[in-house]
Amino acid sequence: MQIAVVVYDRFTALDVVGPYEILSRLPDAHLTFVAERAGAVRTETGFLALTADRALHELPDPDIVVVSGGPGTLAQLENPVLLDWLRAADATSTWTTSVCSGSLLLAAAGLLEGRRATSHWTVLPMLEKYGARPTGERVVTEGKYVTAAGVSSGIDMALTLVGRIAGDEHAQAVQLLTEYDPQPPYDAGSPEKAPAHLVEELRAGGRFDLS
Amino acid sequence: MQIAVVVYDRFTALDVVGPYEILSRLPDAHLTFVAERAGAVRTETGFLALTADRALHELPDPDIVVVSGGPGTLAQLENPVLLDWLRAADATSTWTTSVCSGSLLLAAAGLLEGRRATSHWTVLPMLEKYGARPTGERVVTEGKYVTAAGVSSGIDMALTLVGRIAGDEHAQAVQLLTEYDPQPPYDAGSPEKAPAHLVEELRAGGRFDLS
Repeated sequence: MQIAVVVYDRFTALDVVGPYEILSRLPDAHLTFVAERAGAVRTETGFLALTADRALHELPDPDIVVVSGGPGTLAQLENPVLLDWLRAADATSTWTTSVCSGSLLLAAAGLLEGRRATSHWTVLPMLEKYGARPTGERVVTEGKYVTAAGVSSGIDMALTLVGRIAGDEHAQAVQLLTEYDPQPPYDAGSPEKAPAHLVEELRAGGRFDLS
Repeated sequence: MQIAVVVYDRFTALDVVGPYEILSRLPDAHLTFVAERAGAVRTETGFLALTADRALHELPDPDIVVVSGGPGTLAQLENPVLLDWLRAADATSTWTTSVCSGSLLLAAAGLLEGRRATSHWTVLPMLEKYGARPTGERVVTEGKYVTAAGVSSGIDMALTLVGRIAGDEHAQAVQLLTEYDPQPPYDAGSPEKAPAHLVEELRAGGRFDLS
């Protein structure tokens, strides 16, 4: 089973390293990080680079596609190399998935037309521009299209996918192996739960670079 | 604030990419991935390489140390270059931390003598060999020493640390930005919660390579 994880300049590392950690433990999985050009790809903070072992064109027909989000998404929304690859890969994929603002790329490629989908809460309304139907759920499954909300939600998406592909017991084994028994010290992980002034501040781009 | 994230051959990516995603959003943070030698370092699965931008000796006095775990830990337990660096860095650090089996390296360096600490559940008893006091808690804080349990627990540890360093509100903003509102589709993330036969199987190394 070939899994392609798509990254690009200024992606968000946890968006895809969460799913990588889970999906790479599927039976017979072969997971490859891909980018427009092979080589080191730097994340949004500048503090970390991951290696894309293959260029997109070297992996044309993966079984599973996972598209990263991040501040770099916006610069890719009209990149024909990436969008054409997504359309071609989707034509033969079993699952086409995204984390965070990565769903905007699936949508821009025309793959979410009329479908329910999610994204990072700050960019969720942008999905409508491409004909998708935004929902604030953490993981949205529509046929073979699975989109996850912001950053950390890719872990939940990937575990859901492992359950669908390899069964509940295998998914539970992966959850146990990665000790995914979350105990966040705060309860501010969604715009519904966080203090309203923080939601406004982040939406306005006041504290962190979300652009 | 200098943050050093220590990796080595066959580390577990999520162990440190979780904390990276959270800690890099501390005010004035400068986070650097370090390894014995600078350059690409491959994770346990072989499917992913991260770039260590600096060699250990180039970053002798970080404010925060984060040590990765992973199957590669065992091969480092008597590596004098790494252990000497940990001891030296710890002499001036504000926080010395680990995720997963990374606590075995802190312990092997003599830094957890007599202290409570946690680790990946499969290797927790090994802490005793180095004079630490193992506990199955997800995040253990003893003075400036903070250890986290397996893989995904580094996210909880890092958010706890951000709260201690920059205050609850900043930590909540980071939680909201990373949409850390976990909704695992199963409840098998700890040996207490998972089906007993899976616990036994993973402990015996039957399904995944934990060595």
